[in-house]
Amino acid sequence: MKILSILGSTGSIGTQTLEIVKNNPNEFKIAGLSTNKNIGLLKKQIDMFNPEAVAVMDEEKAGILREKTGIPVYGGLDGLNKIACMEKTDTVVNSLVGSIGVVPTAAAIKNKKNIALANKETLVAAGSVIMELVRKHDVKLMPIDSEHSAIFQCLNGENRKELSKITLTCSGGPFKNHALEQLRSVRKEDALKHPTWNMGAKITIDSATLMNKGFEVIEAHWLYGVPYEKIEVVMHPQSIVHSLVEFHDTSVIAQLGWPNMQLPIQYALSFPKRFPLKTERLDLVKAKQLDFRPINHKLFPCLSYAYLAGKKGGTLPAAMNAANEAAVKAFLNGEIGFLDIPRIIKQQMEAHSIIKNPELEEIMEIDSKIKESTREIIEEKQLVVK
Amino acid sequence: MKILSILGSTGSIGTQTLEIVKNNPNEFKIAGLSTNKNIGLLKKQIDMFNPEAVAVMDEEKAGILREKTGIPVYGGLDGLNKIACMEKTDTVVNSLVGSIGVVPTAAAIKNKKNIALANKETLVAAGSVIMELVRKHDVKLMPIDSEHSAIFQCLNGENRKELSKITLTCSGGPFKNHALEQLRSVRKEDALKHPTWNMGAKITIDSATLMNKGFEVIEAHWLYGVPYEKIEVVMHPQSIVHSLVEFHDTSVIAQLGWPNMQLPIQYALSFPKRFPLKTERLDLVKAKQLDFRPINHKLFPCLSYAYLAGKKGGTLPAAMNAANEAAVKAFLNGEIGFLDIPRIIKQQMEAHSIIKNPELEEIMEIDSKIKESTREIIEEKQLVVK
Repeated sequence: MKILSILGSTGSIGTQTLEIVKNNPNEFKIAGLSTNKNIGLLKKQIDMFNPEAVAVMDEEKAGILREKTGIPVYGGLDGLNKIACMEKTDTVVNSLVGSIGVVPTAAAIKNKKNIALANKETLVAAGSVIMELVRKHDVKLMPIDSEHSAIFQCLNGENRKELSKITLTCSGGPFKNHALEQLRSVRKEDALKHPTWNMGAKITIDSATLMNKGFEVIEAHWLYGVPYEKIEVVMHPQSIVHSLVEFHDTSVIAQLGWPNMQLPIQYALSFPKRFPLKTERLDLVKAKQLDFRPINHKLFPCLSYAYLAGKKGGTLPAAMNAANEAAVKAFLNGEIGFLDIPRIIKQQMEAHSIIKNPELEEIMEIDSKIKESTREIIEEKQLVVK
Repeated sequence: MKILSILGSTGSIGTQTLEIVKNNPNEFKIAGLSTNKNIGLLKKQIDMFNPEAVAVMDEEKAGILREKTGIPVYGGLDGLNKIACMEKTDTVVNSLVGSIGVVPTAAAIKNKKNIALANKETLVAAGSVIMELVRKHDVKLMPIDSEHSAIFQCLNGENRKELSKITLTCSGGPFKNHALEQLRSVRKEDALKHPTWNMGAKITIDSATLMNKGFEVIEAHWLYGVPYEKIEVVMHPQSIVHSLVEFHDTSVIAQLGWPNMQLPIQYALSFPKRFPLKTERLDLVKAKQLDFRPINHKLFPCLSYAYLAGKKGGTLPAAMNAANEAAVKAFLNGEIGFLDIPRIIKQQMEAHSIIKNPELEEIMEIDSKIKESTREIIEEKQLVVK
């Protein structure tokens, strides 16, 4: 039996994780849960899963929930860290969104917790620090992303020294068939219609700009110790082949399935076992056709920015991530256009003075500063990149 | 370093195996070689690979070769068995065609040799006996078929108890788009144009009738201990996805590559390692599109016959295989039509009295008798099935 703490239990990944816990009562038990501010849903989860404690980022909402439940309700980032480090917990599911996920992950690892990681920004902003902690404290870091779960499964029983390439597949997002001109006038509502996955707003915009795929490239680099030259991205609109690996004997292993987050979530928790799952099984005849196309980097410059940030390393990926996070927030608020997102990221990356081998504190400081300066650029209309 | 004996070294698989030996001089060495009657090529192979002994099935040709070389040249089936059991040999590559492959495989296993198996008829005709010998003598049986190599690779590091389905892909052969009416007038020359693989004549006809895929279903049953209900075949004209496995958590793992026999041959010999291979790497963007379609069982009844033979078991698969071998030979000689091949197989299967749990001798006796009676049916035009 594994004892879980879920950071972000009221989001898309969090609720699906609880579904898996519910379906496997002999395998999983909940120690702690957390939400940003959705205390209505969190209260229902408390009643159903009996955690020992919960956290609510929003201090005011934390206070309201405290009145309605008998268990401890922690508030703020400190509360998140407490849930990440609960004594009983052996695995922390991190399904937070944004760089807020970094510090609780680091805290959990230092407390010898295994990590099931859906929060992409953790490895993007702080990959070197996190991977060093994973090694030092000898914990397991399992990916929840469908792409990285696919790669993990493809590498099962294989010698990583014989790995020659990782291919991440990419649905292409809602604008894969757009011309650059059309992207100019894209609105929030257009972007939020992701073709194959149902996700939160931030990750949906990241998928539309392909920054999400850029994050996955950086994550793959850290998770599998593969240089960026050996990571490629190919567009695969059906999202059935979830990713592939190639070995030096030219053999390619792929993981497939209908687009569905239940499998990667469950696998991150069941590994090295596989538990039966009652979702629709892949039917290749029904799938009929799988297409593969090159990525249009002119249309989606964020992917190239991520490769650049990853290769240059140091604090550049953290800077890129912070600029993206602030820009996407502004786009969702209707303050900037869709094409302003890559422009802002480029401007901030060019302005950034890279610190090599940063400490976690330096990374988090840069994260705050760049989010702040990105706000200024947007508010004062200082965007210079065209 | 592995010491190999190759049965059938002058055929398609045999010559490609020697290519791999040549490219990996520190990994492989040749102890013995054999040919049916191509002593010209065998002489060249002797000069290049310095085996200790060779065998030639054709006794007369064996005599001719004996004059030209200083090493022992054995003749006939007994000669094949000698090459399969040479003391120095640790792995026997069996790339013979037809049920002639059964007895040398059994002999090699009894002498504690590992087997790299390209000869499909071995497991089709004598799967129960061969697998029992493999267990008893604790040897490795590695598949050389691209499909079974794919499955083997997909199962790497996985728990076979969690396996829920094997999917064999099938190019569909040259007649996948034919109507039944068109199949009536198919000639040998039409069938020998296989779309994606360059193989010998017998296996090419088996590919055109889909009997080859039926053989692979039976092989998969024996190699992976999977019931027939959990083995499916799907048409995939591009032959890039070489086969797939599904686990009970709905995850599907596939092995891919350009159609190419070098990888499965090398993998059967290099396992558990992978050696670098200098063939073209898969490019999904270049592949562009992968299609999957159902099999038309009315057009290709041999596949259903193989499922039936496998499920009924005993000597029925051996009977089916013998009838097929004789019928294909007659088709290649221009004696019968393409659609007579499934008719003859059906007639012989219906006439066969199954022996349960047969000994190897009983299987080989049935093999001879049914080949003989199939000749009679053809010569005396006693084909009754329409």
